[in-house]
Amino acid sequence: MSIVISSFAWVPPFAQGYVKDLRPRWALNEAGLDYSVHILGDGEADSAAYRAWQPFGQVPAYRDDAVTLFESGAILLHIAGKSPALAPRDAQEAALMQAWMFSALNAIEPKVDNLILPGVFHAGEAWVDGFRGPAEALIDLRLKSLSGWLDGRDWLTGRFSVADIVMATVLRGLQEEPVLQRHPRVAAYLDRCLARPGFERALAAQLATFAANAPAA
Amino acid sequence: MSIVISSFAWVPPFAQGYVKDLRPRWALNEAGLDYSVHILGDGEADSAAYRAWQPFGQVPAYRDDAVTLFESGAILLHIAGKSPALAPRDAQEAALMQAWMFSALNAIEPKVDNLILPGVFHAGEAWVDGFRGPAEALIDLRLKSLSGWLDGRDWLTGRFSVADIVMATVLRGLQEEPVLQRHPRVAAYLDRCLARPGFERALAAQLATFAANAPAA
Repeated sequence: MSIVISSFAWVPPFAQGYVKDLRPRWALNEAGLDYSVHILGDGEADSAAYRAWQPFGQVPAYRDDAVTLFESGAILLHIAGKSPALAPRDAQEAALMQAWMFSALNAIEPKVDNLILPGVFHAGEAWVDGFRGPAEALIDLRLKSLSGWLDGRDWLTGRFSVADIVMATVLRGLQEEPVLQRHPRVAAYLDRCLARPGFERALAAQLATFAANAPAA
Repeated sequence: MSIVISSFAWVPPFAQGYVKDLRPRWALNEAGLDYSVHILGDGEADSAAYRAWQPFGQVPAYRDDAVTLFESGAILLHIAGKSPALAPRDAQEAALMQAWMFSALNAIEPKVDNLILPGVFHAGEAWVDGFRGPAEALIDLRLKSLSGWLDGRDWLTGRFSVADIVMATVLRGLQEEPVLQRHPRVAAYLDRCLARPGFERALAAQLATFAANAPAA
Protein backbone atom coordinates (compact mmCIF):
# COMPACT_ATOMS: atom_id res chain seq x y z
CA MET A 1 0.00 0.00 0.00
CA SER A 2 1.56 3.24 -1.16
CA ILE A 3 0.07 6.32 0.54
CA VAL A 4 0.83 9.89 -0.52
CA ILE A 5 -0.38 13.14 1.04
CA SER A 6 0.24 16.62 -0.31
CA SER A 7 1.89 19.40 1.68
CA PHE A 8 2.91 22.96 1.07
CA ALA A 9 6.69 23.36 0.87
CA TRP A 10 6.61 26.17 3.40
CA VAL A 11 4.11 28.43 5.18
CA PRO A 12 4.66 31.51 7.37
CA PRO A 13 5.62 30.79 10.99
CA PHE A 14 2.13 31.52 12.44
CA ALA A 15 0.69 28.66 10.36
CA GLN A 16 3.46 26.15 10.90
CA GLY A 17 2.17 23.21 12.92
CA TYR A 18 -1.45 24.09 12.06
CA VAL A 19 -1.72 23.14 8.38
CA LYS A 20 -4.33 20.46 7.91
CA ASP A 21 -2.04 17.75 6.54
CA LEU A 22 -1.35 17.34 10.27
CA ARG A 23 -4.59 15.34 10.45
CA PRO A 24 -3.75 12.51 8.02
CA ARG A 25 -0.17 12.46 9.31
CA TRP A 26 -1.50 11.87 12.84
CA ALA A 27 -4.05 9.28 11.74
CA LEU A 28 -1.49 7.35 9.71
CA ASN A 29 0.87 7.37 12.68
CA GLU A 30 -1.86 5.94 14.93
CA ALA A 31 -2.56 3.25 12.34
CA GLY A 32 1.13 2.46 11.87
CA LEU A 33 0.88 3.14 8.13
CA ASP A 34 3.79 4.63 6.22
CA TYR A 35 3.25 7.53 3.86
CA SER A 36 5.20 9.82 1.64
CA VAL A 37 4.68 13.53 1.10
CA HIS A 38 4.09 15.22 -2.24
CA ILE A 39 5.48 18.72 -1.71
CA LEU A 40 3.79 21.29 -3.92
CA GLY A 41 6.13 23.13 -6.25
CA ASP A 42 5.91 26.83 -7.14
CA GLY A 43 2.48 27.54 -8.60
CA GLU A 44 1.43 23.89 -8.49
CA ALA A 45 -1.48 24.49 -6.06
CA ASP A 46 -3.24 26.51 -8.78
CA SER A 47 -2.45 24.13 -11.62
CA ALA A 48 -5.23 22.27 -13.42
CA ALA A 49 -3.62 18.96 -12.50
CA TYR A 50 -3.61 19.73 -8.78
CA ARG A 51 -7.11 21.23 -8.89
CA ALA A 52 -8.31 17.92 -10.33
CA TRP A 53 -6.90 16.31 -7.18
CA GLN A 54 -7.75 19.11 -4.69
CA PRO A 55 -10.38 21.44 -6.23
CA PHE A 56 -9.67 24.32 -3.83
CA GLY A 57 -5.90 24.31 -4.35
CA GLN A 58 -5.36 23.50 -0.68
CA VAL A 59 -3.78 20.72 1.34
CA PRO A 60 -4.00 17.91 2.16
CA ALA A 61 -4.85 15.85 -0.88
CA TYR A 62 -4.46 12.09 -0.51
CA ARG A 63 -3.75 9.15 -2.78
CA ASP A 64 -3.34 5.43 -2.19
CA ASP A 65 -3.50 2.37 -4.41
CA ALA A 66 -7.31 2.51 -4.48
CA VAL A 67 -8.45 6.15 -4.46
CA THR A 68 -7.45 9.79 -4.75
CA LEU A 69 -9.22 12.06 -2.31
CA PHE A 70 -9.32 15.50 -0.70
CA GLU A 71 -10.77 17.14 2.46
CA SER A 72 -9.12 16.10 5.70
CA GLY A 73 -12.42 14.79 7.12
CA ALA A 74 -13.03 12.48 4.18
CA ILE A 75 -9.38 11.40 4.13
CA LEU A 76 -9.56 10.45 7.81
CA LEU A 77 -12.78 8.48 7.32
CA HIS A 78 -11.06 6.62 4.51
CA ILE A 79 -7.94 5.95 6.58
CA ALA A 80 -10.13 4.81 9.49
CA GLY A 81 -11.35 2.00 7.26
CA LYS A 82 -7.80 0.66 7.07
CA SER A 83 -7.10 0.20 10.77
CA PRO A 84 -8.97 -0.97 13.87
CA ALA A 85 -6.82 1.53 15.79
CA LEU A 86 -8.79 4.44 14.36
CA ALA A 87 -12.46 3.61 14.69
CA PRO A 88 -14.95 1.77 16.91
CA ARG A 89 -16.19 -1.54 15.49
CA ASP A 90 -19.75 -1.29 16.79
CA ALA A 91 -22.18 0.19 14.21
CA GLN A 92 -23.71 2.67 16.66
CA GLU A 93 -20.32 3.90 17.82
CA ALA A 94 -19.01 4.12 14.25
CA ALA A 95 -22.03 6.25 13.34
CA LEU A 96 -21.37 8.54 16.29
CA MET A 97 -17.75 8.84 15.21
CA GLN A 98 -18.92 10.16 11.85
CA ALA A 99 -21.33 12.54 13.57
CA TRP A 100 -18.53 13.97 15.69
CA MET A 101 -16.29 14.43 12.67
CA PHE A 102 -18.96 16.59 11.07
CA SER A 103 -19.55 18.39 14.36
CA ALA A 104 -15.87 19.22 14.70
CA LEU A 105 -15.66 20.51 11.14
CA ASN A 106 -19.03 22.24 10.83
CA ALA A 107 -20.33 23.13 14.29
CA ILE A 108 -17.00 23.95 15.93
CA GLU A 109 -14.11 24.73 13.54
CA PRO A 110 -15.86 27.65 11.80
CA LYS A 111 -16.51 29.22 15.21
CA VAL A 112 -12.85 28.78 16.16
CA ASP A 113 -11.80 30.33 12.87
CA ASN A 114 -14.10 33.31 13.41
CA LEU A 115 -12.50 33.96 16.79
CA ILE A 116 -8.88 33.51 15.67
CA LEU A 117 -8.47 34.40 12.01
CA PRO A 118 -9.66 38.04 11.90
CA GLY A 119 -6.79 39.09 14.17
CA VAL A 120 -4.35 37.23 11.93
CA PHE A 121 -5.55 38.26 8.48
CA HIS A 122 -7.34 41.55 9.19
CA ALA A 123 -5.41 43.09 12.07
CA GLY A 124 -6.23 46.77 12.46
CA GLU A 125 -9.41 46.71 10.38
CA ALA A 126 -12.28 48.56 12.02
CA TRP A 127 -14.67 45.60 12.29
CA VAL A 128 -12.29 43.17 13.99
CA ASP A 129 -12.77 44.29 17.60
CA GLY A 130 -16.56 44.43 17.31
CA PHE A 131 -16.74 40.96 15.79
CA ARG A 132 -14.77 39.38 18.61
CA GLY A 133 -17.54 39.43 21.21
CA PRO A 134 -20.18 37.68 19.07
CA ALA A 135 -17.56 35.20 17.81
CA GLU A 136 -16.48 34.32 21.34
CA ALA A 137 -20.09 33.91 22.51
CA LEU A 138 -20.74 31.37 19.74
CA ILE A 139 -17.70 29.20 20.39
CA ASP A 140 -18.40 29.40 24.13
CA LEU A 141 -21.85 27.89 23.51
CA ARG A 142 -20.39 25.10 21.44
CA LEU A 143 -17.71 24.29 24.02
CA LYS A 144 -20.40 24.13 26.70
CA SER A 145 -22.27 21.51 24.64
CA LEU A 146 -19.07 19.60 23.96
CA SER A 147 -18.21 19.67 27.65
CA GLY A 148 -21.60 18.17 28.45
CA TRP A 149 -20.94 15.30 26.05
CA LEU A 150 -17.47 14.68 27.48
CA ASP A 151 -18.82 14.29 31.03
CA GLY A 152 -17.78 10.75 31.94
CA ARG A 153 -16.04 10.14 28.61
CA ASP A 154 -12.34 10.05 27.76
CA TRP A 155 -12.96 10.22 24.00
CA LEU A 156 -15.85 11.31 21.80
CA THR A 157 -16.81 7.67 21.31
CA GLY A 158 -16.03 4.66 23.49
CA ARG A 159 -12.49 4.50 22.13
CA PHE A 160 -10.01 6.93 20.58
CA SER A 161 -10.84 7.46 16.91
CA VAL A 162 -10.31 9.77 13.95
CA ALA A 163 -13.08 11.95 15.41
CA ASP A 164 -10.75 12.78 18.29
CA ILE A 165 -7.95 13.61 15.84
CA VAL A 166 -10.17 16.06 14.01
CA MET A 167 -11.63 17.57 17.18
CA ALA A 168 -8.23 18.00 18.83
CA THR A 169 -6.71 19.70 15.79
CA VAL A 170 -9.73 22.04 15.76
CA LEU A 171 -9.58 22.83 19.49
CA ARG A 172 -5.83 23.44 19.36
CA GLY A 173 -6.58 26.78 17.74
CA LEU A 174 -8.05 27.91 21.08
CA GLN A 175 -5.07 27.08 23.28
CA GLU A 176 -4.20 30.74 23.85
CA GLU A 177 -7.84 31.79 24.29
CA PRO A 178 -9.52 32.33 27.68
CA VAL A 179 -12.73 30.73 26.39
CA LEU A 180 -11.11 27.28 26.37
CA GLN A 181 -10.08 27.60 30.02
CA ARG A 182 -13.70 28.33 30.94
CA HIS A 183 -14.39 24.71 29.93
CA PRO A 184 -11.80 22.69 31.88
CA ARG A 185 -13.25 19.34 30.83
CA VAL A 186 -12.69 20.26 27.19
CA ALA A 187 -9.21 21.59 27.94
CA ALA A 188 -8.34 18.32 29.70
CA TYR A 189 -9.70 16.32 26.76
CA LEU A 190 -7.53 18.34 24.39
CA ASP A 191 -4.47 17.71 26.56
CA ARG A 192 -5.27 13.99 26.57
CA CYS A 193 -5.42 13.93 22.77
CA LEU A 194 -2.26 15.94 22.27
CA ALA A 195 -0.30 13.73 24.67
CA ARG A 196 -0.50 10.86 22.19
CA PRO A 197 2.82 10.00 20.51
CA GLY A 198 1.09 9.94 17.12
CA PHE A 199 0.35 13.64 17.44
CA GLU A 200 3.87 14.55 18.50
CA ARG A 201 5.34 12.68 15.53
CA ALA A 202 2.88 14.29 13.10
CA LEU A 203 3.72 17.76 14.37
CA ALA A 204 7.45 17.12 14.15
CA ALA A 205 7.07 15.77 10.62
CA GLN A 206 5.11 18.79 9.43
CA LEU A 207 7.62 21.20 10.97
CA ALA A 208 10.50 19.23 9.45
CA THR A 209 8.99 19.65 5.98
CA PHE A 210 8.80 23.42 6.42
CA ALA A 211 12.29 23.61 7.89
CA ALA A 212 13.72 21.69 4.96
CA ASN A 213 12.08 24.10 2.50
CA ALA A 214 12.49 27.40 4.30
CA PRO A 215 13.22 30.33 2.00
CA ALA A 216 16.75 31.67 2.12
CA ALA A 217 17.06 34.36 4.79
CA MET B 1 -37.51 0.02 8.90
CA SER B 2 -38.81 2.80 11.15
CA ILE B 3 -37.02 6.12 10.58
CA VAL B 4 -37.50 9.17 12.81
CA ILE B 5 -36.00 12.65 12.45
CA SER B 6 -36.36 15.50 14.91
CA SER B 7 -37.75 18.91 14.02
CA PHE B 8 -38.46 22.12 15.81
CA ALA B 9 -42.20 22.73 16.19
CA TRP B 10 -41.86 26.23 14.77
CA VAL B 11 -39.15 28.76 13.84
CA PRO B 12 -39.41 32.44 12.83
CA PRO B 13 -40.37 33.06 9.20
CA PHE B 14 -36.81 33.96 8.03
CA ALA B 15 -35.64 30.46 8.99
CA GLN B 16 -38.61 28.51 7.66
CA GLY B 17 -37.52 26.35 4.74
CA TYR B 18 -33.87 26.57 5.80
CA VAL B 19 -33.73 24.42 8.93
CA LYS B 20 -31.37 21.52 8.41
CA ASP B 21 -33.89 18.71 8.81
CA LEU B 22 -34.56 19.65 5.18
CA ARG B 23 -31.50 17.57 4.28
CA PRO B 24 -32.59 14.17 5.62
CA ARG B 25 -36.16 14.85 4.44
CA TRP B 26 -34.82 15.40 0.89
CA ALA B 27 -32.51 12.38 1.01
CA LEU B 28 -35.25 10.11 2.30
CA ASN B 29 -37.56 11.33 -0.47
CA GLU B 30 -34.93 10.53 -3.10
CA ALA B 31 -34.49 7.08 -1.60
CA GLY B 32 -38.23 6.46 -1.38
CA LEU B 33 -37.98 5.81 2.36
CA ASP B 34 -40.79 6.81 4.71
CA TYR B 35 -40.03 8.66 7.91
CA SER B 36 -41.83 10.21 10.82
CA VAL B 37 -41.01 13.45 12.58
CA HIS B 38 -40.34 13.85 16.28
CA ILE B 39 -41.42 17.41 17.01
CA LEU B 40 -39.57 18.91 19.94
CA GLY B 41 -41.77 20.04 22.78
CA ASP B 42 -41.26 23.18 24.89
CA GLY B 43 -37.79 23.07 26.46
CA GLU B 44 -37.06 19.60 25.09
CA ALA B 45 -34.09 20.75 22.98
CA ASP B 46 -32.20 21.57 26.19
CA SER B 47 -33.22 18.43 28.08
CA ALA B 48 -30.64 15.85 29.08
CA ALA B 49 -32.50 13.20 27.10
CA TYR B 50 -32.38 15.19 23.87
CA ARG B 51 -28.77 16.28 24.44
CA ALA B 52 -27.86 12.59 24.63
CA TRP B 53 -29.36 12.27 21.14
CA GLN B 54 -28.24 15.67 19.76
CA PRO B 55 -25.46 17.11 21.97
CA PHE B 56 -25.90 20.69 20.71
CA GLY B 57 -29.66 20.82 21.24
CA GLN B 58 -30.20 21.35 17.52
CA VAL B 59 -32.00 19.56 14.70
CA PRO B 60 -31.98 17.19 12.97
CA ALA B 61 -31.36 14.17 15.10
CA TYR B 62 -32.05 10.80 13.48
CA ARG B 63 -33.03 7.33 14.61
CA ASP B 64 -33.75 4.08 12.79
CA ASP B 65 -33.87 0.44 13.84
CA ALA B 66 -30.06 0.24 13.88
CA VAL B 67 -28.63 3.56 15.09
CA THR B 68 -29.32 6.95 16.63
CA LEU B 69 -27.34 9.76 15.08
CA PHE B 70 -26.93 13.52 14.75
CA GLU B 71 -25.31 16.02 12.32
CA SER B 72 -26.98 16.28 8.94
CA GLY B 73 -23.79 15.26 7.09
CA ALA B 74 -23.41 12.06 9.07
CA ILE B 75 -27.13 11.34 8.81
CA LEU B 76 -26.98 11.68 5.03
CA LEU B 77 -23.94 9.41 4.76
CA HIS B 78 -25.86 6.84 6.79
CA ILE B 79 -28.99 7.18 4.67
CA ALA B 80 -26.87 6.92 1.51
CA GLY B 81 -25.90 3.44 2.60
CA LYS B 82 -29.54 2.41 2.40
CA SER B 83 -30.23 3.29 -1.24
CA PRO B 84 -28.43 3.11 -4.59
CA ALA B 85 -30.35 6.30 -5.50
CA LEU B 86 -28.15 8.36 -3.18
CA ALA B 87 -24.54 7.40 -3.82
CA PRO B 88 -22.19 6.22 -6.57
CA ARG B 89 -21.24 2.54 -6.39
CA ASP B 90 -17.66 2.92 -7.58
CA ALA B 91 -15.16 3.22 -4.69
CA GLN B 92 -13.39 6.25 -6.16
CA GLU B 93 -16.65 8.08 -6.79
CA ALA B 94 -17.99 7.17 -3.34
CA ALA B 95 -14.82 8.61 -1.78
CA LEU B 96 -15.26 11.82 -3.79
CA MET B 97 -18.85 12.03 -2.61
CA GLN B 98 -17.63 12.02 0.98
CA ALA B 99 -15.00 14.63 0.14
CA TRP B 100 -17.64 16.94 -1.32
CA MET B 101 -19.87 16.52 1.72
CA PHE B 102 -17.06 17.75 3.92
CA SER B 103 -16.28 20.54 1.44
CA ALA B 104 -19.87 21.72 1.45
CA LEU B 105 -20.02 21.73 5.25
CA ASN B 106 -16.52 22.97 6.08
CA ALA B 107 -15.09 24.88 3.11
CA ILE B 108 -18.33 26.48 1.91
CA GLU B 109 -21.17 26.63 4.46
CA PRO B 110 -19.21 28.62 7.07
CA LYS B 111 -18.40 31.20 4.39
CA VAL B 112 -22.06 31.42 3.40
CA ASP B 113 -23.02 31.84 7.04
CA ASN B 114 -20.48 34.62 7.52
CA LEU B 115 -21.97 36.51 4.59
CA ILE B 116 -25.62 36.01 5.53
CA LEU B 117 -26.01 35.63 9.29
CA PRO B 118 -24.53 38.90 10.61
CA GLY B 119 -27.27 40.89 8.87
CA VAL B 120 -29.89 38.59 10.39
CA PHE B 121 -28.66 38.28 13.96
CA HIS B 122 -26.60 41.45 14.40
CA ALA B 123 -28.35 44.04 12.24
CA GLY B 124 -27.20 47.54 13.14
CA GLU B 125 -24.07 46.52 15.03
CA ALA B 126 -21.03 48.56 14.07
CA TRP B 127 -18.90 45.68 12.77
CA VAL B 128 -21.46 44.18 10.38
CA ASP B 129 -20.83 46.44 7.36
CA GLY B 130 -17.05 46.16 7.62
CA PHE B 131 -17.18 42.38 7.87
CA ARG B 132 -19.24 42.02 4.71
CA GLY B 133 -16.43 42.73 2.23
CA PRO B 134 -13.98 40.15 3.61
CA ALA B 135 -16.80 37.62 3.97
CA GLU B 136 -17.90 38.09 0.37
CA ALA B 137 -14.33 37.80 -0.91
CA LEU B 138 -13.91 34.43 0.82
CA ILE B 139 -17.12 32.87 -0.50
CA ASP B 140 -16.34 34.27 -3.95
CA LEU B 141 -13.05 32.36 -3.96
CA ARG B 142 -14.78 29.16 -2.94
CA LEU B 143 -17.46 29.51 -5.60
CA LYS B 144 -14.76 30.04 -8.20
CA SER B 145 -13.14 26.74 -7.21
CA LEU B 146 -16.50 24.97 -7.17
CA SER B 147 -17.30 26.38 -10.60
CA GLY B 148 -14.06 24.97 -11.93
CA TRP B 149 -14.96 21.51 -10.64
CA LEU B 150 -18.46 21.71 -12.15
CA ASP B 151 -17.10 22.45 -15.64
CA GLY B 152 -18.42 19.53 -17.68
CA ARG B 153 -20.24 17.97 -14.73
CA ASP B 154 -23.95 17.90 -13.91
CA TRP B 155 -23.38 16.72 -10.33
CA LEU B 156 -20.44 16.75 -7.93
CA THR B 157 -19.79 13.10 -8.73
CA GLY B 158 -20.79 11.10 -11.79
CA ARG B 159 -24.35 10.76 -10.51
CA PHE B 160 -26.64 12.70 -8.18
CA SER B 161 -25.82 11.89 -4.57
CA VAL B 162 -26.22 13.09 -1.00
CA ALA B 163 -23.25 15.39 -1.65
CA ASP B 164 -25.46 17.36 -4.04
CA ILE B 165 -28.21 17.52 -1.43
CA VAL B 166 -25.82 18.99 1.11
CA MET B 167 -24.19 21.38 -1.37
CA ALA B 168 -27.52 22.63 -2.74
CA THR B 169 -28.93 23.30 0.73
CA VAL B 170 -25.74 25.24 1.52
CA LEU B 171 -25.76 27.28 -1.71
CA ARG B 172 -29.45 28.10 -1.34
CA GLY B 173 -28.47 30.62 1.32
CA LEU B 174 -26.85 32.69 -1.44
CA GLN B 175 -29.85 32.92 -3.76
CA GLU B 176 -30.39 36.61 -3.02
CA GLU B 177 -26.67 37.45 -3.14
CA PRO B 178 -24.91 38.97 -6.16
CA VAL B 179 -21.86 36.77 -5.54
CA LEU B 180 -23.77 33.67 -6.67
CA GLN B 181 -24.71 35.29 -9.98
CA ARG B 182 -21.04 35.98 -10.65
CA HIS B 183 -20.65 32.19 -10.95
CA PRO B 184 -23.37 31.18 -13.44
CA ARG B 185 -22.23 27.56 -13.61
CA VAL B 186 -22.77 27.24 -9.88
CA ALA B 187 -26.12 29.02 -10.08
CA ALA B 188 -27.23 26.64 -12.85
CA TYR B 189 -26.08 23.65 -10.79
CA LEU B 190 -28.11 24.90 -7.84
CA ASP B 191 -31.19 25.31 -10.04
CA ARG B 192 -30.68 21.77 -11.35
CA CYS B 193 -30.59 20.39 -7.80
CA LEU B 194 -33.58 22.37 -6.59
CA ALA B 195 -35.70 21.28 -9.58
CA ARG B 196 -35.77 17.73 -8.23
CA PRO B 197 -39.17 16.63 -6.89
CA GLY B 198 -37.52 15.26 -3.76
CA PHE B 199 -36.45 18.77 -2.81
CA GLU B 200 -39.87 20.28 -3.43
CA ARG B 201 -41.54 17.66 -1.26
CA ALA B 202 -38.99 18.12 1.53
CA LEU B 203 -39.50 21.87 1.54
CA ALA B 204 -43.28 21.50 1.58
CA ALA B 205 -43.07 19.00 4.43
CA GLN B 206 -40.88 21.27 6.56
CA LEU B 207 -43.15 24.25 5.97
CA ALA B 208 -46.21 22.12 6.77
CA THR B 209 -44.72 21.19 10.15
CA PHE B 210 -44.22 24.86 11.03
CA ALA B 211 -47.67 25.85 9.74
CA ALA B 212 -49.28 23.17 11.87
CA ASN B 213 -47.48 24.43 14.98
CA ALA B 214 -47.60 28.20 14.43
CA PRO B 215 -48.11 30.21 17.60
CA ALA B 216 -51.51 31.80 17.98
CA ALA B 217 -51.57 35.27 16.37
